Amino acid sequence: MNNKIIHQAFVDTANALTPRLFRSKTYPQQQVEVLANEQAFQGWEVKPAGTMEEFSSKVLRQGDSVTLDFGDHQVGYVTLSIRNIDSNADAPLRLKLIFGEMPCEIGEDFADYSGWLSRSWLQEEIIHVDVLPGVVTLPRRYTFRYMKIVVLATSIRYHVSFPEIYCETVTSANVLQIAPLPAHVPEDLQQMDRIAIKTLQDCMQTVFEDGPKRDRRLWIGDLRLQALVNYETFQNNDLVKRCLYLFAGMRLEDGQVGACLYEKPQPFIDDIYLYDYSLFFVSTLYDYYSATQDRQTLLELWVVAVEQMEIALKRLNAKGIVQDDDTWYCFLDWHDDLNKQAGAQAALIYNLKRGLLLANELGDIDRSVFIQSAIESASAAAMDILWDTDRQFFVSGESRQVSWASQIWMALAEVLDEQANAELLERLIKENPEIGMSTPYLYHHFIEALVLCGKREEAFKQMRNYWGGMIADGADTFWELYNPADKRLSPYGSNLVNSYCHAWSCTPSYFIRKYFVNGEGM
Amino acid sequence: MNNKIIHQAFVDTANALTPRLFRSKTYPQQQVEVLANEQAFQGWEVKPAGTMEEFSSKVLRQGDSVTLDFGDHQVGYVTLSIRNIDSNADAPLRLKLIFGEMPCEIGEDFADYSGWLSRSWLQEEIIHVDVLPGVVTLPRRYTFRYMKIVVLATSIRYHVSFPEIYCETVTSANVLQIAPLPAHVPEDLQQMDRIAIKTLQDCMQTVFEDGPKRDRRLWIGDLRLQALVNYETFQNNDLVKRCLYLFAGMRLEDGQVGACLYEKPQPFIDDIYLYDYSLFFVSTLYDYYSATQDRQTLLELWVVAVEQMEIALKRLNAKGIVQDDDTWYCFLDWHDDLNKQAGAQAALIYNLKRGLLLANELGDIDRSVFIQSAIESASAAAMDILWDTDRQFFVSGESRQVSWASQIWMALAEVLDEQANAELLERLIKENPEIGMSTPYLYHHFIEALVLCGKREEAFKQMRNYWGGMIADGADTFWELYNPADKRLSPYGSNLVNSYCHAWSCTPSYFIRKYFVNGEGM
Repeated sequence: MNNKIIHQAFVDTANALTPRLFRSKTYPQQQVEVLANEQAFQGWEVKPAGTMEEFSSKVLRQGDSVTLDFGDHQVGYVTLSIRNIDSNADAPLRLKLIFGEMPCEIGEDFADYSGWLSRSWLQEEIIHVDVLPGVVTLPRRYTFRYMKIVVLATSIRYHVSFPEIYCETVTSANVLQIAPLPAHVPEDLQQMDRIAIKTLQDCMQTVFEDGPKRDRRLWIGDLRLQALVNYETFQNNDLVKRCLYLFAGMRLEDGQVGACLYEKPQPFIDDIYLYDYSLFFVSTLYDYYSATQDRQTLLELWVVAVEQMEIALKRLNAKGIVQDDDTWYCFLDWHDDLNKQAGAQAALIYNLKRGLLLANELGDIDRSVFIQSAIESASAAAMDILWDTDRQFFVSGESRQVSWASQIWMALAEVLDEQANAELLERLIKENPEIGMSTPYLYHHFIEALVLCGKREEAFKQMRNYWGGMIADGADTFWELYNPADKRLSPYGSNLVNSYCHAWSCTPSYFIRKYFVNGEGM
Repeated sequence: MNNKIIHQAFVDTANALTPRLFRSKTYPQQQVEVLANEQAFQGWEVKPAGTMEEFSSKVLRQGDSVTLDFGDHQVGYVTLSIRNIDSNADAPLRLKLIFGEMPCEIGEDFADYSGWLSRSWLQEEIIHVDVLPGVVTLPRRYTFRYMKIVVLATSIRYHVSFPEIYCETVTSANVLQIAPLPAHVPEDLQQMDRIAIKTLQDCMQTVFEDGPKRDRRLWIGDLRLQALVNYETFQNNDLVKRCLYLFAGMRLEDGQVGACLYEKPQPFIDDIYLYDYSLFFVSTLYDYYSATQDRQTLLELWVVAVEQMEIALKRLNAKGIVQDDDTWYCFLDWHDDLNKQAGAQAALIYNLKRGLLLANELGDIDRSVFIQSAIESASAAAMDILWDTDRQFFVSGESRQVSWASQIWMALAEVLDEQANAELLERLIKENPEIGMSTPYLYHHFIEALVLCGKREEAFKQMRNYWGGMIADGADTFWELYNPADKRLSPYGSNLVNSYCHAWSCTPSYFIRKYFVNGEGM
């Protein structure tokens, strides 16, 4: 909670852009049982256990429980209509309610949770209902497909039933904005597009949240990808603008754009600084301007973008390379062993190139010259220091690590020419270095890099393989993490707190709508 | 949930009399520790553990807990102001809150609860706070002196403090109505009067509740005693009127006034019928009329009172004695082994006598004659069948049980003359039959009987002994149950769910203000 730089006019602009949320009611579709089954995804199988018509008249006694399946991913506020059965409720009703995006959250006992993120992220409530029959609307927002009800205590005189349960969903995404895909798009991509759009929709609240279950806040790394999908789908461009103004309006004490921010009790930024994330202010502004031609916003925020480039350039060492260290100074991917130096260098060049385009657009010649020069020297240093001629890969850090992330980001930075980039990615796929990809976030950049160097067919093959794997494993929305070789993988010590509707995973719709529909069809 | 007789005009009259509640803020007085100590009341000792000034800046970490002492009994809504410490709250805060009227509720683990009343009566919440710093007002009403806060989960980044916690208390009792006692009233009675008034005050909500922690509803047995104290203190006579109209407006299918009723979601009576409780409609109406001279209400409700007497008389057997059985057909006292027959017979006569006074007041000659005759025959049958000349006690049931309850109620029914009644009570105290008194409710009737037969000194001695015992044992308000010989006694299998602020225990103020202040001083 150090000093922050607050530009109140920017924050006020952001606040004025706070969207109204669209609300609609959704109902559970069936009763289910969640059963341990090592063959099922993460070891939990979901089996139908009765219709909702049966449920509405079902009598639950103390100790009984039921799990309801809403049939799809939900973000919203839950209302339960509760009736006392056999006699009046001569004592309060005590219920436990558990909400899960995934079967694991229903199947596993939260009491055994041992992850290192707070247990408070587990969506579990114990509530008391003093008046029956009654209608209870829970005050907190939940993110879930499954809802388990455990009747902890009635009295010896009464039991309960639940004639109606529903969720009032919330989103700032207007689903009427979505153009249907042309008929020539194959069904698997149609399905992937639907799921990706739902992922974005559920993350679109009063900001672009990273995940509506966790962390429920605005990260600029997620924002950048969400915005790209948004331009192809919901076109709520004011929400992107609001987020840009929030990041511009509240910066860290040395001027850096923060990695993430909170909206409540009033907007504030977190202390986290990440080298790549601050730079993404530049490319996110570039993407926004490209989509909207909103010159007024560009004019206002340009100075913040320039500052991010200047700050990033200060980290270059005498050789013109990003100074490496062991801290979490740059994100790139959730990977404990990934060295970030080459990726950071590439992210710098990538954002400088977009900064240059903006400088030229604005006719800011001084900055244009400065940035052009920075691109050239950073690129030269990358080739000089990080390019390993023998191995034909970019290396990172003192150990000269070869990773997927470094190659992908260098390809996106276009340090090599298109042909060499294509060969780099082919080599990457073929040689498959040990330091691989952990997150859909890095996968996005891999796909984007393939597209960039003309390998659309390979790009869509990889996308179908990876996101299609999530679909085959039961995704209603795309996940924060997916490792086909380790499906319980969590960077938090427990897959219970993984986010199963995560902003940075929603980009298939961007690829499908931007490149497939308007491309050759592949 | 059988058919009920609803007299909607009466219910409407009652609803129109719903009082506005007085609200005021109270604050915790100190931090305390609750420690096991077999010498302390119920085995729990309360030790000071810090000032509130210290608490307001105290940093609580995950796993920490603190117990706050509000210094007196509270009924109301709790607000916590919560601040994150060291960093922003990057995950929700998960708190457990426990509210206890008594130290046992803080000291004992609710997980071990094994009473037969619902565990839902235990005042425990687990809440999540999504936004910090923040102010949380809990939606449920709590009844407590002690509040324990357990910090179940923060995150690795932040801790919490509670700069302000308060309770907004609620009552329909106007404390400005209380006349101070004359200086000649000794300090122990002054103190007893204060505690009794606080007991009534905390039970006075939109009805006269039996106990604000449990059951939080209107029982006519409690109402009758609360009304007596109310006439001497708060004089909220419209609240008595409201309660009478509620009982008159909703009756059991054969016309009986129910034993208790609920206000929400809309007023309805419980299925419970108790012989003595239905009859108390008569004496409660009589007391109300005596206090208010509200003839309009008497005229409207008289028919219901008459019906209760008629219904009660139908239970007399061929010998003119209340038909005994093993069910819970008559209350009198919480005592498993108490036979109710003699007490029920006496309660019948007691209420008939008040019914007769009302009939005469109304000039309802037919009913007057009928009731007079019923009193005579019921009294004669009592002397004939239930009076044991050898033992000089009233006996009850087939086993000819001699109990305190039977003698007390027969004294109140004035079946014997004043002198014989006085001798009966002296004999009762001296011989002390095994079936004794369990509740302050029956103690009230014992004191009242002593006063009735001119034994005021003994009455006040007994009252000081019994209610004074509660004060010595730490009562802030008077308790539902108090057995000096077994201080953990509970008719519910656990003293955790005993009510420690209970309507029927508030009558010392009635005795002090009606008989002591206006009497000889004793």
